[in-house]
Amino acid sequence: MNAMHRSLSIAALGLSALAATAQANTIETRWTDVNVETVASGLNHPWGIAFLSNGRMLVTERAGTMHIIDSDGNKGEAIAGLPEIKVRRQGGLLDVALSPDYESDSTIYFSYSEPESAGSEVTSTAVARARLEDNELHDVEVIFSQYPKEDGGRHYGGRLQFSADGEYLFIGLGDRGHRQDDSQTLDNHTGKLVRIHRDGSAPSDNPFVDEDGALAEIWSYGHRNIQGMDIQPSTGKIWAVEHGPQGGDELNQPEAGLNYGWPVVTHGEQYGGGEVGIGFDKEGMELPVWHWTPSIAVSGMAFYDGNQFPAWQGNILATGLRGTQVARLEVDGDRVIHQEVMQFEQRIREVRIGPDGLIYLLTDESDGKILRLSPSDD
Amino acid sequence: MNAMHRSLSIAALGLSALAATAQANTIETRWTDVNVETVASGLNHPWGIAFLSNGRMLVTERAGTMHIIDSDGNKGEAIAGLPEIKVRRQGGLLDVALSPDYESDSTIYFSYSEPESAGSEVTSTAVARARLEDNELHDVEVIFSQYPKEDGGRHYGGRLQFSADGEYLFIGLGDRGHRQDDSQTLDNHTGKLVRIHRDGSAPSDNPFVDEDGALAEIWSYGHRNIQGMDIQPSTGKIWAVEHGPQGGDELNQPEAGLNYGWPVVTHGEQYGGGEVGIGFDKEGMELPVWHWTPSIAVSGMAFYDGNQFPAWQGNILATGLRGTQVARLEVDGDRVIHQEVMQFEQRIREVRIGPDGLIYLLTDESDGKILRLSPSDD
Repeated sequence: MNAMHRSLSIAALGLSALAATAQANTIETRWTDVNVETVASGLNHPWGIAFLSNGRMLVTERAGTMHIIDSDGNKGEAIAGLPEIKVRRQGGLLDVALSPDYESDSTIYFSYSEPESAGSEVTSTAVARARLEDNELHDVEVIFSQYPKEDGGRHYGGRLQFSADGEYLFIGLGDRGHRQDDSQTLDNHTGKLVRIHRDGSAPSDNPFVDEDGALAEIWSYGHRNIQGMDIQPSTGKIWAVEHGPQGGDELNQPEAGLNYGWPVVTHGEQYGGGEVGIGFDKEGMELPVWHWTPSIAVSGMAFYDGNQFPAWQGNILATGLRGTQVARLEVDGDRVIHQEVMQFEQRIREVRIGPDGLIYLLTDESDGKILRLSPSDD
Repeated sequence: MNAMHRSLSIAALGLSALAATAQANTIETRWTDVNVETVASGLNHPWGIAFLSNGRMLVTERAGTMHIIDSDGNKGEAIAGLPEIKVRRQGGLLDVALSPDYESDSTIYFSYSEPESAGSEVTSTAVARARLEDNELHDVEVIFSQYPKEDGGRHYGGRLQFSADGEYLFIGLGDRGHRQDDSQTLDNHTGKLVRIHRDGSAPSDNPFVDEDGALAEIWSYGHRNIQGMDIQPSTGKIWAVEHGPQGGDELNQPEAGLNYGWPVVTHGEQYGGGEVGIGFDKEGMELPVWHWTPSIAVSGMAFYDGNQFPAWQGNILATGLRGTQVARLEVDGDRVIHQEVMQFEQRIREVRIGPDGLIYLLTDESDGKILRLSPSDD
């Protein structure tokens, strides 16, 4: 650093100020040194991960393939039986989640870019379920297709999260890049958080079930592109992160029927850049619990609920693509009271807590990796 | 930065990661470039500032002197008539505030280390008021003395803040360094936020007025060392920042009668360092709205309510001594939803918003300065 510089960009401070180390074996944090291990590599832009028995992991690749990774990090053959997936820009095979009764029903749920017809670039973000047997999917059933189908290769959303009781499936959706205004109306799934039963039906207590012209699957609206979700262990509530425009990535705790403002209110450049414009706040629209400005390109999120990092219990871990980081947010009720950033070199797509209480990350690269974070013994 | 480093300290990220520039004439921020001007220099550890008419400023120096700085930055003669002040380590002349009726009563309020007897090192944090006429104080009257008086040269608190209606004076106090446990009991002023009338009497609606053995001046308790305070313009509520131990500087919105936890719960090292210990949360004790961990040695704070930085309306500006920074916190109700850090080279003691809507800082140096922040015309 040159102290004589007459101008200093501090916009990125707290996000990615240091050109820091992904190759680091250890990251020093407030509470513990964190060891970073590469568990598996050779994954093509991995997007979603679910934990099977015996240390195995089910991982999606955006290019339209799904693999089981064994406990030694070996990548199995591509799982057969996936439906047609339109791979285009941000679209492809997205998230995967196990059925809450996976041990008995062997069923998985996955989200993907579903073409209108074979080869079409007009797609929905869809969710299917299927039984996984012998590295093959059986009885594939599409339980949800975002309405309407759209051309365009951006903002698919796609993150899946079951409720704490396993009865409901939340699907985070996006505005498909050029249907921003649809996020504010209830006659479509664009820019919505959706809540369905496991069979795709709309729960009778969804907020707009009885509203004429509104789609019954909608839980909350005014979202731009939900990329990460998790259930808060202490409350059972759903939390979600979404991409803002140039800045203004958001953390929200979406409540039934509420409006999260996109594209009317945002912390991003659209209405900003020195001018306040329409501003951040408007009657009837919710402010985020936290926002990252400038954008880290927030992707996955998870509440830490394992036993390996006791000081991090109940904290949110949120990953950044452009921000190449894991942000740890300390949460008190519905507010964030502190942020600490763990800096990596790679774009991080997703974070999940393993059954072993360790933290698993997916790196968004053509030679993508599963990284595992554990507390240092020191 | 060396990407091959096997260990990287990220603990400071977001706080003071860059060895950045105080000599910078411009600091780039999210909403505007900020010009930094030196308005005055040659101040010996300035601690408090108040704005007089015609661009003049009343400034305290910790060494026990008070001066009027004219609009050209010239420092007047030391103001005569101050009471005896015990200058020792963190103690000395501390804050200054104008009477809400200053234009008609010419009265100022100031806080300082008051010795038990001439030359004694046993002191109270005291508050006096006096008329300021012709560079001289008249009718000096001590309206508050922290009980009990204590030996020791640390954690005097000392920040002063009038309520929005001007009827009440808040005095932020500290634990005097070695009376931590007193912060939890109500028979003393140690580690308390105090609220008095302008004449020093205890308001009848203070929370412990009717409690036997409790001091009537107490507003809230369990504080470690309150160093900055301001009234939130949108609510009229008092907010305060205080030093934690090794880490865990806090932002609180102290409510009447509530316990802010020190020394029982804290984010600092005392109970931390890899162990959770007693933890952060305990029934009957309030969590902070925000905390800085590791510590920036938080000092002053102000809500921005001027017209020069429209995008910052209602934001909190908080200064750091060790952190050599101004942290800008975006506030939604009682929560912080974003932090941006402006990095300086000097320790910053205090921040106030001038009548011109510009931001004034005091640097904590033997050749201390008044800095003024204005939006760049670019």
